[in-house]
Amino acid sequence: MKTLVIGGAGFIGSHLCDALLGRGDEVFCVDDFSLGTKENIACAGSNVHFHLMESDASNLEGLKDIFADIQPEYVFHLAANSDIQASAEDPAIEYKNTYTTTFHILSCMRRYRVKKLFFASTSAVYGDKRGILLKEDTPDLSPVSYYGAAKLGSEALISAFSHMNDFHSLIFRFPNVIGPRLTHGVIYDFIAKLRKNPEELEILGDGTQCKPYIFVSDLVEAILFAAFDNQETTAIYNIGVEGRTSVTSIADMVCRSMKLEEVRYRYTGGNIGWKGDVPGFEYDLSRIHAKGWRASHTSDESVQATLESMRLG
Amino acid sequence: MKTLVIGGAGFIGSHLCDALLGRGDEVFCVDDFSLGTKENIACAGSNVHFHLMESDASNLEGLKDIFADIQPEYVFHLAANSDIQASAEDPAIEYKNTYTTTFHILSCMRRYRVKKLFFASTSAVYGDKRGILLKEDTPDLSPVSYYGAAKLGSEALISAFSHMNDFHSLIFRFPNVIGPRLTHGVIYDFIAKLRKNPEELEILGDGTQCKPYIFVSDLVEAILFAAFDNQETTAIYNIGVEGRTSVTSIADMVCRSMKLEEVRYRYTGGNIGWKGDVPGFEYDLSRIHAKGWRASHTSDESVQATLESMRLG
Repeated sequence: MKTLVIGGAGFIGSHLCDALLGRGDEVFCVDDFSLGTKENIACAGSNVHFHLMESDASNLEGLKDIFADIQPEYVFHLAANSDIQASAEDPAIEYKNTYTTTFHILSCMRRYRVKKLFFASTSAVYGDKRGILLKEDTPDLSPVSYYGAAKLGSEALISAFSHMNDFHSLIFRFPNVIGPRLTHGVIYDFIAKLRKNPEELEILGDGTQCKPYIFVSDLVEAILFAAFDNQETTAIYNIGVEGRTSVTSIADMVCRSMKLEEVRYRYTGGNIGWKGDVPGFEYDLSRIHAKGWRASHTSDESVQATLESMRLG
Repeated sequence: MKTLVIGGAGFIGSHLCDALLGRGDEVFCVDDFSLGTKENIACAGSNVHFHLMESDASNLEGLKDIFADIQPEYVFHLAANSDIQASAEDPAIEYKNTYTTTFHILSCMRRYRVKKLFFASTSAVYGDKRGILLKEDTPDLSPVSYYGAAKLGSEALISAFSHMNDFHSLIFRFPNVIGPRLTHGVIYDFIAKLRKNPEELEILGDGTQCKPYIFVSDLVEAILFAAFDNQETTAIYNIGVEGRTSVTSIADMVCRSMKLEEVRYRYTGGNIGWKGDVPGFEYDLSRIHAKGWRASHTSDESVQATLESMRLG
């Protein structure tokens, strides 16, 4: 199948490209390399079915040319800002890189009659709903970050475009995603901090923030499992794993992996890492489980597998 | 109070300006006159407390100058596309006039530390939920129009900006709003069609589409009632009236007002007026009623009052 992976050189996008190539698909990868890297797609690049187009999906004219040229059958939209702390300082990042990319991609699909879409959404659309097991139909979605707001706005656009143009769109609300090629997040930050100072680790908040972490290969498997036979106009799924991992547990695992002993933890205090952060959430996964998919790693195992893939010791 | 009414020369905005002036507020009206008109604000314009600034709220630089200049205490955001059929043909209208205006207004509020916002949202955020009494916390909001999608995206932005910057934001989800200065919608269309051909009236759909219509003075009263003492970060209310009015009933009332007899109705058929239209909905109004506000006109009375205000006979 002729697939267009937008944001295909990013952390998750590049793993998806690898998996699509593994299936024998033709993969057209669009990336502006603002967060994506050439290294991420080095392996994919050696496959004759892989085609790289350097372009910014927030530029409508460039995107139109790509759609006109390729006439893709399936669009995987993973182009977005993924650095939530950066956009907390500058919300315009989300307007351009998360919402506008979605609007332009949907407009191109409408114009070039492409009917099938996968969209990477997030638990951040729910807002801070501590104590509630989050279901896809939990009411009162009220994002507390600009990132979550732009993703929820993107979901709303997908709902309307899909209805108006008979698309089949699949939306996954990702939890924290980790694994090889990780570019930020708590594991990444801890490793960077400990390389600078192996004796003391600054931990944002009080360390009790507790979320589910999914290993990227599990996530990509779920995407391939559900994407191609989706017949719904707009289908939404929570994607997650068994269990959750606290920030302090992650610190312990990172220290062990780096063979560091007696690291002092210095907590900045408070129960959130930064304003706009959601310190904890838990997914009801019955919808995706009923569909027949389950992650093969628990949250703790995902963290462990990520650390092992980094060969830190 | 120093108020900024964005979209203040539009149908609803101009009535709000009149009411704010009536309260003795200082009113700074921003409009790009794409849908608003000078006639709408002719009366307001004679008040020394009324100040007009012709500017397009989707232009960030112009908006920044206005915020810097005025330093408003309260922002009423009514700048949006309101012609849903037009954007069904060209969704970019909603991207620019509905979503981008909201993003820029919120960005300016953040930058210039303005903390109080009123936002005009819509029943279209719910999507097509026939048979369900719509409550503010009805789950699975899934807009079927680009208009509804851009409004829901705007609500999501307001949620995040309000959380991040300690705003107090009030969101009203309007039903169909009618009254003097109406610029489109079914009443407006019927009058225009009957002026062209008083013998036959084309009715989109099968005429059974049935919605609540609120008289604009009731709506403005509700805004003033709730806006100034809102202490919530983001408060959302359905705003509506008792009863609903079918499209065929409206046709009957319009014909009577125009003193036309034996007009043939020609239905285009189907149960929606156009793709993206929601043929009927009903609001649960208990949240705003509990707050102490109730509309003084029923839906049918609103239609009748609108027709009387037009002096058609």
